[in-house]
Amino acid sequence: MDIRSVMGIRFLITGGTFDKEYNELTGELFFKDTHLSEMLKLGRCRVKVEIRTLMMIDSLDMTEQDRIMIADHCNKAAEHKIIITHGTDTMADTARFLASRVSGKTIVLTGAMIPYKFGSSDGLFNLGSAMAFVQALPPGIYVAMNGKCFNWDNVRKNKKTGEFEEIELRQD
Amino acid sequence: MDIRSVMGIRFLITGGTFDKEYNELTGELFFKDTHLSEMLKLGRCRVKVEIRTLMMIDSLDMTEQDRIMIADHCNKAAEHKIIITHGTDTMADTARFLASRVSGKTIVLTGAMIPYKFGSSDGLFNLGSAMAFVQALPPGIYVAMNGKCFNWDNVRKNKKTGEFEEIELRQD
Amino acid sequence: MDIRSVMGIRFLITGGTFDKEYNELTGELFFKDTHLSEMLKLGRCRVKVEIRTLMMIDSLDMTEQDRIMIADHCNKAAEHKIIITHGTDTMADTARFLASRVSGKTIVLTGAMIPYKFGSSDGLFNLGSAMAFVQALPPGIYVAMNGKCFNWDNVRKNKKTGEFEEIELRQD
Amino acid sequence: MDIRSVMGIRFLITGGTFDKEYNELTGELFFKDTHLSEMLKLGRCRVKVEIRTLMMIDSLDMTEQDRIMIADHCNKAAEHKIIITHGTDTMADTARFLASRVSGKTIVLTGAMIPYKFGSSDGLFNLGSAMAFVQALPPGIYVAMNGKCFNWDNVRKNKKTGEFEEIELRQD
Repeated sequence: MDIRSVMGIRFLITGGTFDKEYNELTGELFFKDTHLSEMLKLGRCRVKVEIRTLMMIDSLDMTEQDRIMIADHCNKAAEHKIIITHGTDTMADTARFLASRVSGKTIVLTGAMIPYKFGSSDGLFNLGSAMAFVQALPPGIYVAMNGKCFNWDNVRKNKKTGEFEEIELRQD
Repeated sequence: MDIRSVMGIRFLITGGTFDKEYNELTGELFFKDTHLSEMLKLGRCRVKVEIRTLMMIDSLDMTEQDRIMIADHCNKAAEHKIIITHGTDTMADTARFLASRVSGKTIVLTGAMIPYKFGSSDGLFNLGSAMAFVQALPPGIYVAMNGKCFNWDNVRKNKKTGEFEEIELRQD
Repeated sequence: MDIRSVMGIRFLITGGTFDKEYNELTGELFFKDTHLSEMLKLGRCRVKVEIRTLMMIDSLDMTEQDRIMIADHCNKAAEHKIIITHGTDTMADTARFLASRVSGKTIVLTGAMIPYKFGSSDGLFNLGSAMAFVQALPPGIYVAMNGKCFNWDNVRKNKKTGEFEEIELRQD
Repeated sequence: MDIRSVMGIRFLITGGTFDKEYNELTGELFFKDTHLSEMLKLGRCRVKVEIRTLMMIDSLDMTEQDRIMIADHCNKAAEHKIIITHGTDTMADTARFLASRVSGKTIVLTGAMIPYKFGSSDGLFNLGSAMAFVQALPPGIYVAMNGKCFNWDNVRKNKKTGEFEEIELRQD
């Protein structure tokens, strides 16, 4: 890993299933705060990180304005390695958007199918894999889900299975 | 990621805190089966894996004979990418041992400070990061703990903090 | 405890927060199967029980027809001790309804504010207390929530706090 | 429930599996603080309680001196309803001891087979049932485990199954 990683990793929080909680008075799911610090502590993570919450929304509600703001934060960040937590429904869209606006940085988007607070979440596994991919991969925009890493231009969420897959299989 | 990763990842299980359980009749910790499949399922991991349990022991009890067997399995495996789950106490020793006997493969050792079954384990996070590092890194022997990846020749467990650290900081 | 308890306890399942799950494809909460057997196993419960699922609904959707069916099952059950799992919103209503139709049996209604599958549920605690109250109390209709046992004619859910309370404090 | 319950419930903590934790540096189980308040909060318990930690020990290490102290605390407590958390191995012995020294109060001993912190504990279920039995039963010394309530003079732990059982079946 190169010297730039000593600057640490910037986290940009946008919401998504990852951070949803259960409101016991209304019986509905809602956003309060991100659980990212708690998860990194549980993982005994010792990598230097900076966490910044940009929004707490369902990714289906994300607008172009929101994506412009995310891109701006990626460009302005001192760090060259950035992880974005994001709802899964439009994660691939945001990856594509960022590819047209940000370059020279390693950016990994990740999220979860089950809220972290619900006990049986994939979130901690995904977070571990995003942490590793962002450190190990060269500049580019990636999606880290299902234990895999996808390039921004070859990934989609399969709505039937809930899994991420390549649009076309390649041997690059 | 290169074409060799289509062969999938080989897991070699050796035990360690990762897989310890609580015996409610004796009040002692013990090994039964590995929880690896359950953890990969929880992480919705869709990477092709082969799992092989070699032993279920405390890493303080690991002998040279055991390490020779692990090295043999690494060399004979069809896969070029291998993850070894291992107790943390001698994980760095085994990494060093393998470096002298195995080459041309990406091998990542990982483990946990808290048993997976105990609810607040770092195991799922470490597994996610090991899955990512093994796919992304070039051939070599690595230790993946605390969200970091260490080269085999520059890692030790700090017995006081329970964390892995570099023996000497370098700018490689 | 009298001889009638050797007949065991009848569980009638009606749904409620207790048994809700998270649908990871739609992001919505839904009912699948009851988790009661799993919970009793976790509690190492050795009391003889019979479990019967009558419906799996939000208690706000419960109709008079549904309550008539519940009352019928209470009356026809061979057991003299019955626990009904129920959504909290109309639990007190159903208790009142049953009081007008069932007599000579100890019936305890219970539920949860957080789904059992969400990791931080009050469900297991409530289940333990319902199991105990139903064995120890004389015939009557009761609500067991918040570690307390309420008589059917003196209980309501406080919508603001989510807690059950007596309508008027008495010294009986 | 009679007027005396308005005084609330006194908890006496003695340790046992219930409150054991995992020391990630040594890999051993140990006692730190009791988790009782946390568990009552999880159960949304609204009963008035007073908690007093007397010792934090394995019940196999409990001496007659320890039991005399427990009995003294039972006798001196203002409350008429007392729950004692206790290791399971000698829980029945302590119940018998207390029966010879304390009278006029409802005392329920309970514990767990799996530590509360280990995710799959029976502790929360047992706590719920102890809370209910202590409120509902007349003065006497009881053991609440496995969803059942045993009189002090007719209970033992089956070392093979880990379950509590009556010494002889009776129809009282």
